[in-house]
Parts: sequence; C-alpha cells; structure tokens
Amino acid sequence: MTKWYEEKDLDKQTVISSRIRLARNLKKYPFSAAISEEKSKQLIEEVKNAIKNERTFLSEMFEYTELNNLSYEDKTAMLENHIISADLINKKSPCAALIQNDESVSILLNEEDHLRIQSICAGYNIDKAWQNADKIDDLIEESVEYAFDKNYGYLTACPTNTGTGLRASFMLHLPMLEKTGRIRSISQSLSKFGMTMRGLYGEGSEPLGSIYQISNQITLGKSEEEIIDSLKNLTAQIIEQEKSITEQYKKYHKLEFEDMIFRSYGILKNCKLISSKEAMQLLSDVRLGINSDVLKTSPKANIYNIMMNIQSGNLQKRCGKTLNESERDIQRAQYLNDVI
Amino acid sequence: MTKWYEEKDLDKQTVISSRIRLARNLKKYPFSAAISEEKSKQLIEEVKNAIKNERTFLSEMFEYTELNNLSYEDKTAMLENHIISADLINKKSPCAALIQNDESVSILLNEEDHLRIQSICAGYNIDKAWQNADKIDDLIEESVEYAFDKNYGYLTACPTNTGTGLRASFMLHLPMLEKTGRIRSISQSLSKFGMTMRGLYGEGSEPLGSIYQISNQITLGKSEEEIIDSLKNLTAQIIEQEKSITEQYKKYHKLEFEDMIFRSYGILKNCKLISSKEAMQLLSDVRLGINSDVLKTSPKANIYNIMMNIQSGNLQKRCGKTLNESERDIQRAQYLNDVI
Repeated sequence: MTKWYEEKDLDKQTVISSRIRLARNLKKYPFSAAISEEKSKQLIEEVKNAIKNERTFLSEMFEYTELNNLSYEDKTAMLENHIISADLINKKSPCAALIQNDESVSILLNEEDHLRIQSICAGYNIDKAWQNADKIDDLIEESVEYAFDKNYGYLTACPTNTGTGLRASFMLHLPMLEKTGRIRSISQSLSKFGMTMRGLYGEGSEPLGSIYQISNQITLGKSEEEIIDSLKNLTAQIIEQEKSITEQYKKYHKLEFEDMIFRSYGILKNCKLISSKEAMQLLSDVRLGINSDVLKTSPKANIYNIMMNIQSGNLQKRCGKTLNESERDIQRAQYLNDVI
Repeated sequence: MTKWYEEKDLDKQTVISSRIRLARNLKKYPFSAAISEEKSKQLIEEVKNAIKNERTFLSEMFEYTELNNLSYEDKTAMLENHIISADLINKKSPCAALIQNDESVSILLNEEDHLRIQSICAGYNIDKAWQNADKIDDLIEESVEYAFDKNYGYLTACPTNTGTGLRASFMLHLPMLEKTGRIRSISQSLSKFGMTMRGLYGEGSEPLGSIYQISNQITLGKSEEEIIDSLKNLTAQIIEQEKSITEQYKKYHKLEFEDMIFRSYGILKNCKLISSKEAMQLLSDVRLGINSDVLKTSPKANIYNIMMNIQSGNLQKRCGKTLNESERDIQRAQYLNDVI
C-alpha cells in the first residue's frame, strides 16, 4: 500500500501536506487526566468496535495497534511519520491507535483527548483531508456519544481546543523565506489572524529542513469551514511570497543559487557521515533545487519522504537494530548516497 | 609534447616534483642591478646563441621567448607553471627565457642573476633534475665565461647564492601534517639543518593546497652532492611522517577521513562558483584520497596539474580572454566539474 507521503511529484509543491485534526471526547468517560486504567481500556474497546465492527470498506482499511506494546524505536518512527504525537511515546496508561493503511488517517485513543482523529493528504488538499476526517468522525458518532455542549460545541481536555475541536494545518517548505530571514516577521504576524507557525514536529520543535506548519489557534466561535478558509487564504499569501522571492533570487543571483543547491547535492551524494540536522538542511536545498527546476535529479523517493526516513526512529527501523548516534550518522550517509 | 607535470601517476606520490636551480653570472657583464639595457640585450643574445647555435639534439629542444613582449596573463600562467619567477612578471628591462619543450628545463636571462638554470622532474627525481641542469650548465659554459672565484665558487647577485649557486628543492604534498598542525614544528626545525620550507609559489607565498617546497638555504662550503644528499635525507623523514600520520588517521578515524575526502570530491564535482583558495583545499583532500586509496576516481589530469590549471593566469589563457574575479570563479567551477 502506497503511503500518502510517498507521492512522486511532491517535490514540485511548496505545500507538503494538508492536515486536519479533530479532538473528541466520549460523554460517559472522565477526561484523560482523571480516567482510570480500567475505564481507559473500556474506552479503547468501545471506539475500536465503533470502527472495526462496521462492515464497511472504510472500516476495513484500519489497523488497530496497542501503543504500549511497541518498542521505543517503533513509536519514534510513528511520530516521525506524523501518525502519533510525542505525548504517546512515553505514556504508560493504555493508549492505542487505529491507522488507515496508507497512513493518511489515524485515530489516537487516550491521548490528551479520548480521541484525536487526524487526516493528512499530500500537497494542497485540505478539503479532502477535512472530508476524510469528517467521514470518520460521523462513522464513530454513529456508535458513541461525544461530550458536546450546545453553546460551546465539542468539549475538550484543554480549553484551547473546545468548540470545533479542529486544528487545520498546512506543512510548507519555505527555504527562501527562511534564508532571507523573512520567516520571522511572517510568523509574528500570523498570530494576529488567530494562526500560528511551528516546526516540522509541532509545538516547540525546531524548524528543520525549512519546513513549517501553519495552523489555526482559535477553535471556538467559528465554523470548521471558516477556519479552513482563513487558513487557506493566509497560506496562499505565504506560498506566493516564497515563490516570488525564489524567482527573484534565481534571476538576480543565478549562480549563487545554483552553487548552493549543487553543493548540497554533492555533499549528500558523497558524505560518509552526516547528522540529521545537517542532512535536513542539505535536503531542503535539494528540494528547493528540484522545485525551482535548477536540479534535474530524480531521487529514489520524494525529498520529504527521505527527510522522514533519515530521522532516528525510521533509520533504526530500516536497519532492524538500535543504533547509537555515530552509527546513525553512518547509516544516514549511506542511505542518502544511495537515494539522492 | 607532454609536460613534466602531466605525468599520470603523480597523484600517488607525496613528492610532486624535484627541482634544481643554478644561479650563474657572466664575467664580462655587470651584475643585474648595474647592467645597462644595451648590455642586457647583448647578454641575452650571447646566452641564446650559446644554446641555439649548438646543433645538438638538446639545444634544439629549447624555445626562446622574450618576456617583455608577453601579456600579463601569459606571464602569470608561466609563473603558475613554475617556468618563470615572480620577479620577471613586471620587469621592464630586457629579460628572456629559453624553455625546453616539456617545460622541464628553463633558462631565465636577466633575472636577479644573469642566468637562472632550472630543471624540474616529476616526483622524487632530484638526481635526474641535477643531471639535466648540470648538462645545460656545461653546454653554456662551453661558450661563455662565468663569474667564478676559486675560493668562493660561483659569484651571484645576492650573497646567499654564492658558492654552488644551487638551490635544490622538493615540492611535497603534506595534507595530514598540515591538518594536524605538525607542519609548523617541522618547518621550524628545518632551519637548523640549513633548509627552509615555503609555500607553493616560493618565498613568502601561502601554503595553498597543502603543498610545501623544501629547499637548501646554504649554498656555500658544501658540494652540490652534499647539499642534495642532506635535502634527500630530511625529505625522506618528512615523507615518512606524512605517510605514518595518514595511515594512523585512516586506521583510527576511517569514516571521518573518508567523509572529509568524499565531501570535498562532491563539492568539486558539483559547485558552480569556487575561489582558488577553496578549490586548492578541496583538491588537496581529493589528492590525499587518491594517494591513500580511499578515492577510486580518475580525474582527467593529475591533481597537481589541475591545481595549476585553476590559477588565475592559466584559467584566463584557457578561456582566451581576461576574466574578473567572479568570472574566474565560474570558469574554475565549470573546469573542475568536468575534470574531477
């Protein structure tokens, strides 16, 4: 089964992915902070059945995974692929996930909220991501009763999610806005519109590989469609700025631009040791080169997929063993020499 | 005609070249500082005839060039190829050179001394270089009378050359002694043995590409053979140290060693702009890689030859026009992408 992030033409787009996350809680269970282990298990069972007992084509695409039984490396790889959140890696109490086979939809059970439904589509496809999440949400609601207030909307563990329970986001590759430092002022101005900008791995994470997530901060007092529309509008402007600055730079600093890209390509193709941080930077340059038609190379996977594959968890999964930092630097270099 | 520096296997040797330089003056002319323009021309004619009127195989291999008529770029290229000295580039008064067709022997006329006979051989071949210089010296002496004192030996413009008038030198590639900083103590200790260490382009020049010239400082009170023998002994020790430190590093830091070499290779193969200084550094790494069997690449020329070809004068000669600094950086990158 091809995963959403394996799409071949992804490198040609500024938008890497579109994501919808819905926070839901079941009426008859206490919120996560207060729930007993017993009740947690019951809750997991109930939602699992809501999906798996439906004999629909959709429900058959989901696989159930108990997260507590997985190794640290496996969970890290799932985090790197944006299937689970960082919160679930070290969680001792019962938690689980229902994951669609192309990894485009995952339902996390007993995360901060009882349910986190997330739906990701490659590229600029937020409407499709919303439809997919909405469909799953409806499917589950046929069997369970959500905690819902007619004034506030969906009730959530953290009040910042109350209302729609929706977080809509785009993952963008913004190398030139980053290199020119303009990303900072964009990031600051987003908050005025109830939006926020984060790094590749969400809240508090460093912007690796010039990848930024833009998402809504406000979930209350607006409909899902309104939230998604204003996110789309702001994102369109950011994409336009990235494209325009790239064209300008490519036009007026052609050789410096090409030199930067080709050097990064040459290092990735030849290095024997490389840290994750450096590799992300060089991969970002190569992606910029492909996207701007400077580099006519065909990596064995799209650059975003390669970026996920060089992360610690995925790398160890690929090698089938635990690796220390310098072993990872070696394996990462070997992998990059081969795929770039 | 293949030039001495075009030898294919040169990269496998620590010694790039062996050089002999003899300083000679003609008895019947004033030394260079005091000579008139008229006398300078007579002197040139006399030595030219001494070589060219001999109907021997040897004399037919020499081409006569009036340096005053050459362009700045052409003279710079000759300097870069170690045919002429920096002194001759801007000299206004008559000066000329007789150059053997493989560029292994050149006779400079009206440099600091009336005659500078220099003989270069690729690799560790100082005896051959000495024989070649000695042969030319004898050939000239059949027609002219040298300024010679039975106590002091050959008289020269600068007393540091008086006696044998000999400077014997090896051009060595010492990347690991440089990287580890050991080159400094070696350089300092050489003076105790009457030897000196210089950069690629002689006195006062920066050590580009980890290339060092080791030569005798003392010309008086020792025979030519004694000077050459002690230079050989010291050089053998330096070569041994370079080899030993390379082996050690290759053994105990295998991946760091390979990573450094392959990254440099990758940049040279892909850059679109490169300064001479950076290129020399990266070429030095690639030469180290070839010499230590880490890099199995076959550049279109040996690395030392490439190092000469990327210098400003040679680069402009190759392009057939004057280039400014950034144009040279572009042409240099294109050339390196192609030959490495």
